[in-house]
Amino acid sequence: MRVRWALEEVGQPYEVRLVSFAEMKESAHIALHPFGQIPTYEEGDLVLFESAAIVFHIAENHPGLLPEDPNARARAITWMFAAQNTVEPPILERETALLLEHDKSWTEHRLPMLEGRIRKRLTELSDRLGGADWLDEAFSVGDLVMIGVLRRLGSSGFLNDYPNLSAYVARGEARPAFKRAFADQLAVFTASQQA
Amino acid sequence: MRVRWALEEVGQPYEVRLVSFAEMKESAHIALHPFGQIPTYEEGDLVLFESAAIVFHIAENHPGLLPEDPNARARAITWMFAAQNTVEPPILERETALLLEHDKSWTEHRLPMLEGRIRKRLTELSDRLGGADWLDEAFSVGDLVMIGVLRRLGSSGFLNDYPNLSAYVARGEARPAFKRAFADQLAVFTASQQA
Repeated sequence: MRVRWALEEVGQPYEVRLVSFAEMKESAHIALHPFGQIPTYEEGDLVLFESAAIVFHIAENHPGLLPEDPNARARAITWMFAAQNTVEPPILERETALLLEHDKSWTEHRLPMLEGRIRKRLTELSDRLGGADWLDEAFSVGDLVMIGVLRRLGSSGFLNDYPNLSAYVARGEARPAFKRAFADQLAVFTASQQA
Repeated sequence: MRVRWALEEVGQPYEVRLVSFAEMKESAHIALHPFGQIPTYEEGDLVLFESAAIVFHIAENHPGLLPEDPNARARAITWMFAAQNTVEPPILERETALLLEHDKSWTEHRLPMLEGRIRKRLTELSDRLGGADWLDEAFSVGDLVMIGVLRRLGSSGFLNDYPNLSAYVARGEARPAFKRAFADQLAVFTASQQA
């Protein structure tokens, strides 16, 4: 979704190639992605992996996602890293606990701790965002990645306690580029369910 | 250490300002770093946080850490993200378990799982590195961040099972810029212990 959204923001056409779970572990895919994950990205001879790296590559090569002012550009990049490295890890830790350790006796005792770590980051982010529309003046790749991270919280209810963060996510989802990316992603999912 | 190392690689002078644990939670520091962590970076009017964002800013603005060829540059950036977002998270999860959950009954049962997740990533990384010196031809910011991540494993012994990764880390540590950064970091630590 983050890669689709970035491509829609800068108005670049793209083709999607779906990869099954079995194919992700095959050598042809490992040649593209050493850690056997998705997404990968191909553009001529160039092969990239890691969604943030792909999103950043798109942002660097097409206008629309990075400010021209060098300092504003560096701050937008900082928010992209902060989203990935500081806000996302506790969210992923909770997902891992629910997915890989749901049958363990300790998970119900660990979950309140994990939720506390998520709330700490959301509180800090909410305090910084305040009443602003975006993290640093104009919408940038930093917002795209941060909103992508916050959307992982889905229907968990965490964002209900942070009205400015809920509004921030809604503001991202209201962008025409996000809507196009979401509709296309949904269409692929629907088609795969019918296949 | 990663920021010091990057500054030494590109030959830029810098001044260090130490921040105490108490100061990290004060509003003056939160103004620089919304998540109350270190490091932060100041350059004229520009304030950045997140070590990877700072390292990347240094790499973008001085020759030595990013290839000139656009595709090689994009791949170097991809490795930087892969180090932070794919290799580091399981290492951090183990650190968190040892630091914040060491007194919990479940930690001894969880540790083998966490160690398995680390070994999975190390195996994949080792397979991709093979007999090469660096991840993508010349040393880049991707190697600097990846070696910084692998060094977190410290004396845990994980790398003993991966001779090519051990040699890769040693190759990074043998660089004159790394040695200067390490000596300076150690001097600050020694001085703070004596204070």
